[in-house]
Amino acid sequence: MKFSIMRDRLLDGLNDVMKAVSSKTTIPILTGIKIDISSEGVTLTGSDADITIQTFIPVEEDGKEILQVKEPGSIVLQARMFNEIIRKLPTNEVVVEVSEQLQTRIQSGKSDFHLIGSDASEYPLLPDISADRQITLPADLLKTIIRETVFAVSTTESRPVLTGVKWEIKDNSLVCIATDSHRLAQRKVTLEQLPSEEMNVVIPGKSLTELSKILSDSPHPVDIFMTNQQVLFKTPDVLFFSRLLEGNYPDTSRLIPEESSTIVTINGKALLQGIDRASLLAREDRNNVVRFSTIDTGTVEISSNSPEIGKVEEEIQIDSFEGEELKISFSAKYMMDALKAIDGQEVVIQFTGAMRPFTIRSIHDDAILQLILPVRTY
Amino acid sequence: MKFSIMRDRLLDGLNDVMKAVSSKTTIPILTGIKIDISSEGVTLTGSDADITIQTFIPVEEDGKEILQVKEPGSIVLQARMFNEIIRKLPTNEVVVEVSEQLQTRIQSGKSDFHLIGSDASEYPLLPDISADRQITLPADLLKTIIRETVFAVSTTESRPVLTGVKWEIKDNSLVCIATDSHRLAQRKVTLEQLPSEEMNVVIPGKSLTELSKILSDSPHPVDIFMTNQQVLFKTPDVLFFSRLLEGNYPDTSRLIPEESSTIVTINGKALLQGIDRASLLAREDRNNVVRFSTIDTGTVEISSNSPEIGKVEEEIQIDSFEGEELKISFSAKYMMDALKAIDGQEVVIQFTGAMRPFTIRSIHDDAILQLILPVRTY
Repeated sequence: MKFSIMRDRLLDGLNDVMKAVSSKTTIPILTGIKIDISSEGVTLTGSDADITIQTFIPVEEDGKEILQVKEPGSIVLQARMFNEIIRKLPTNEVVVEVSEQLQTRIQSGKSDFHLIGSDASEYPLLPDISADRQITLPADLLKTIIRETVFAVSTTESRPVLTGVKWEIKDNSLVCIATDSHRLAQRKVTLEQLPSEEMNVVIPGKSLTELSKILSDSPHPVDIFMTNQQVLFKTPDVLFFSRLLEGNYPDTSRLIPEESSTIVTINGKALLQGIDRASLLAREDRNNVVRFSTIDTGTVEISSNSPEIGKVEEEIQIDSFEGEELKISFSAKYMMDALKAIDGQEVVIQFTGAMRPFTIRSIHDDAILQLILPVRTY
Repeated sequence: MKFSIMRDRLLDGLNDVMKAVSSKTTIPILTGIKIDISSEGVTLTGSDADITIQTFIPVEEDGKEILQVKEPGSIVLQARMFNEIIRKLPTNEVVVEVSEQLQTRIQSGKSDFHLIGSDASEYPLLPDISADRQITLPADLLKTIIRETVFAVSTTESRPVLTGVKWEIKDNSLVCIATDSHRLAQRKVTLEQLPSEEMNVVIPGKSLTELSKILSDSPHPVDIFMTNQQVLFKTPDVLFFSRLLEGNYPDTSRLIPEESSTIVTINGKALLQGIDRASLLAREDRNNVVRFSTIDTGTVEISSNSPEIGKVEEEIQIDSFEGEELKISFSAKYMMDALKAIDGQEVVIQFTGAMRPFTIRSIHDDAILQLILPVRTY
């Protein structure tokens, strides 16, 4: 196997697949990156067994020669080391050559590396994903959906299925739901193309976070294929595979209140900043709870009190107020996460009393819903 | 005590004094910042007992009113909390008011904080430094001197005096020396003003690193005052106090070889990059040793060999070569540190055999000298 390649383009590809490689893996071959050379180009694969990322670098791109293939073949090279070497090479032309016994020579300018590779046939095969269950979303929308939901997954392993985001495709729409049982984030998307059948999968939160780092902010379509165990996100450059979580995701529909006794409309950014300040004192007591009180039809107060350190009161103007007066306490972190997901817009907060979950929605858009359980403070 | 102040100017001052505050202190009052208000302005003081930083914010600056003093006084407020609160306040005007029982109110816009302060009379007094032993250096030169020497101090406490940089003032010059007993960095500066007497102090490396972060890159003079236990660096805005290290600093003058058997002149940047690449493999074996070999009168080779991973050879052009052929091994890290201190210039490396310390100097400037002990590899 022998090829020469433009260093900067190889680095771009490595940058994507390195996101799947973990130094903590217990499978030694997965500390490596698989490199496959064919007459069409180079395929790079990285994996931590949960996530697998594959990218393809063609011989020619935009009329520019990227790659010269002298002899096809495959090799696995230690990922971190290979990436560091390529990054630091002195010239933009890199020659990689594998001789017998997996000896791999990497040359650039007067730099001459010899690495001992691993046999590519030992590298796990990619999951087989048939194309019958498929939807397509623009990359920028997919990133937005991830940002609006993934923060709410559980970070503890006590109920593993809650560390993922449920994706449910039904009635021409996709509903994404994440909950850690203290708060819930839900986003609905109307699909333009009808999927062939109903689907219901739970995608690990960590996979979605990594996927989000690779996706561009472009409206280019991402094809999404699902099986019972795997999901594949396919862009022109990258294949991103993730295993799915097993187990029954709880039915969250009954959590969302249908009525409300207090409705407040408020600027999301002003509320976010007020809670951010109030949480400075709340944080010290470790529970991070702030109190929200309606003052009059034009004002709410966010407050926090920490006997050893001091107290804070923040008055925030509201746009409208309907229903009963209310004093309610909740996690400043959960509220800030929810407001960030709605991205500084005007929000409607609907309460059903101090001990019931409340919802936060954008006034412009019903597609996103955030729900938070209050905290009893007396 | 009561004053109102421009938030952004207060933040600048806090930013300086926060550098002295450590969360690890065992003295509770030192988790706070002392605030003293007089009719002239605000003085802020932070300290971790080793380093003390004081800054003064005047009532008026460049014809602009910064501060309105309603009532003079002093208070100590929890440093991290106070800093965070000020940073997040909603408007640029901040009112701070201390009532009886050290209750401190911080107001800005509709934000209203109440903190419990500590009695300023419990805060340690600043060291008393008399003005008789003084030198003056431009701030940019002082930063350069620190950068060229401080990296070579010892990081272990086995010989505490080696964790500092020795500053010796003698014969109209300042000589700064740092060594961890494996390598040495030395910088000479000719002083324009004669100091009143010889001085010899050891300044903790950590203090110099923190000082460097506060100093600007300007040629403004910094006045340096020394006593037997303390040094004070005085700029127009900031007083920076550090304790000195006790103990006898070793005599390093006999370490520096007077003769040499091999002299190589080489581009420091090319050598640095070659060693950086070679050390990728050397690092894995934890000792980080690379080999330097003269090849011919125009080339040296940097190489490293790690039986389990592979090997690397780097050929580097040299400008001139005098004396005997040489193969020598040394720490890649020490060599890279030394070359970075000389800042990418052409360097002269003088060797006296494979087992003797060697020196690195800029070809342009004799003021800076780096010395490294080789490693025996056979």
